[in-house]
Amino acid sequence: MAKNNTITFFDLTMATGATTSPFVWSTKFALKHKGFDLDVVPGGFTGILERTCGVTERLPAIVDEGTWVLDSWGIVEYLDKTYPDRPMLLADPGMVPLIRAVDAWFWRVAVGPWMRCFCADYRDLCFEEDKEYVTHSREIMVGMKLEDKQAGREDRLPLISAEIEPLRITLRESSWLGGNEPSYADYRIIGPFLFLASVAKIPPLAEDDPLRDWIERCRDLFGGLGRHPGLFPLYGLPRREGDPELFAPPGQGGIHKRNTGPQSTRAETERITDGMKK
Amino acid sequence: MAKNNTITFFDLTMATGATTSPFVWSTKFALKHKGFDLDVVPGGFTGILERTCGVTERLPAIVDEGTWVLDSWGIVEYLDKTYPDRPMLLADPGMVPLIRAVDAWFWRVAVGPWMRCFCADYRDLCFEEDKEYVTHSREIMVGMKLEDKQAGREDRLPLISAEIEPLRITLRESSWLGGNEPSYADYRIIGPFLFLASVAKIPPLAEDDPLRDWIERCRDLFGGLGRHPGLFPLYGLPRREGDPELFAPPGQGGIHKRNTGPQSTRAETERITDGMKK
Repeated sequence: MAKNNTITFFDLTMATGATTSPFVWSTKFALKHKGFDLDVVPGGFTGILERTCGVTERLPAIVDEGTWVLDSWGIVEYLDKTYPDRPMLLADPGMVPLIRAVDAWFWRVAVGPWMRCFCADYRDLCFEEDKEYVTHSREIMVGMKLEDKQAGREDRLPLISAEIEPLRITLRESSWLGGNEPSYADYRIIGPFLFLASVAKIPPLAEDDPLRDWIERCRDLFGGLGRHPGLFPLYGLPRREGDPELFAPPGQGGIHKRNTGPQSTRAETERITDGMKK
Repeated sequence: MAKNNTITFFDLTMATGATTSPFVWSTKFALKHKGFDLDVVPGGFTGILERTCGVTERLPAIVDEGTWVLDSWGIVEYLDKTYPDRPMLLADPGMVPLIRAVDAWFWRVAVGPWMRCFCADYRDLCFEEDKEYVTHSREIMVGMKLEDKQAGREDRLPLISAEIEPLRITLRESSWLGGNEPSYADYRIIGPFLFLASVAKIPPLAEDDPLRDWIERCRDLFGGLGRHPGLFPLYGLPRREGDPELFAPPGQGGIHKRNTGPQSTRAETERITDGMKK
């Protein structure tokens, strides 16, 4: 399989040439993790069915020596099953439901809301031939004009940033979502951040967001796969008066801190028993 | 180690005898998963430091043949490291950050909010000798009288139920959070549901919540470890006029449905291109 180590990969990009779909991004990382070179078929939203010979209306899709494989999860399963001698994307089947849970959460609180913050920019950045389809389909999805949906995003971006704190808590004790090494967990979540970078005409994250370290390390993987001149800066969201903290101040631990004995809990005990008779 | 296969386990219960702490619940399941019998030291919040010979102010804590082990994560790591020949709680180290992420999310959107919905019930249900400490410490934590914090929970419970949809999405395609078999992922999340059952004087989940199947299967594990006469019913939350859907209606798929070719995406394509020139 995979003649000359190469797999055909159908890209989905903006007019800038930057990949936009979160799922297509995740899949690109997954293929590189398995060590493949990509024969990239470029393109936007229009004509996917034609480009893929009628095989699919949606991307990602790959062709490995004549075998078509669809769907981001379908491709990951195919790659680990067909190439178990190459680095595994999912070292244990017990990781699958957990990645699904993190992914479902992240779409709910971040990816969906970010899409609504940048839906008009997204339309403006796509290929000329895609604009009618993108405008029409996204206006049905969001239920109004894209400009109206996008409006007021300055008030919403700080809330989204605060809401993704669980990712920051996770990456306090681990270099990667995969543990000591990146796994498909990392690729599944960096995909949406790179989608965001493909459309974010104003920065969605704080300059000093603790996630920046992990995001930039992900982008550096595979010779800078997550870097493209068409991507916008992610950092620089200001915190205005009345905004929530964009991320939890360092030093907070609470329930996510380890109990190593009375010295580790004494300060909290003092705080919550303050004034009680000893 | 573990003479007669028994480990000493410090419980933390309500006056009903039902374990309450989410972390203590998760640890109890973890010990049973490893096949141990428990020598249970009962008790409430008062006197933990004395019961544990000055070793800790917080539970869970275990003693395995003279070796004290603290902290829910610390205990899991100890058990898998010391007893690798017994069923693993974490089959791969890459599962740890993912469980932490799911856990951090779940505390943020559900466990913390549920605690605030039942904080006065919690105080009323604890041992007489614990009431002063629980009232004082929790009023400092929530910043007001427990009755005032709990008030209005009828309006908040439906929102919490809607917010935990990512768990339902995950369990649509998997029997357990651990995949084909329960892992520490399941125990980590069932713990908070059993905390909830230890204090919930009104039901927090809908009668027909799709999570019910997984929750009840978890409770049945290890001879009904998650069943205790002191636990309250979890199901029966009504949906009042104006409440959001308590869970997503079946059949919704969206981004969490697989693309298996044009026939699987055609209906959505028709919907979002409705009225466009073909």
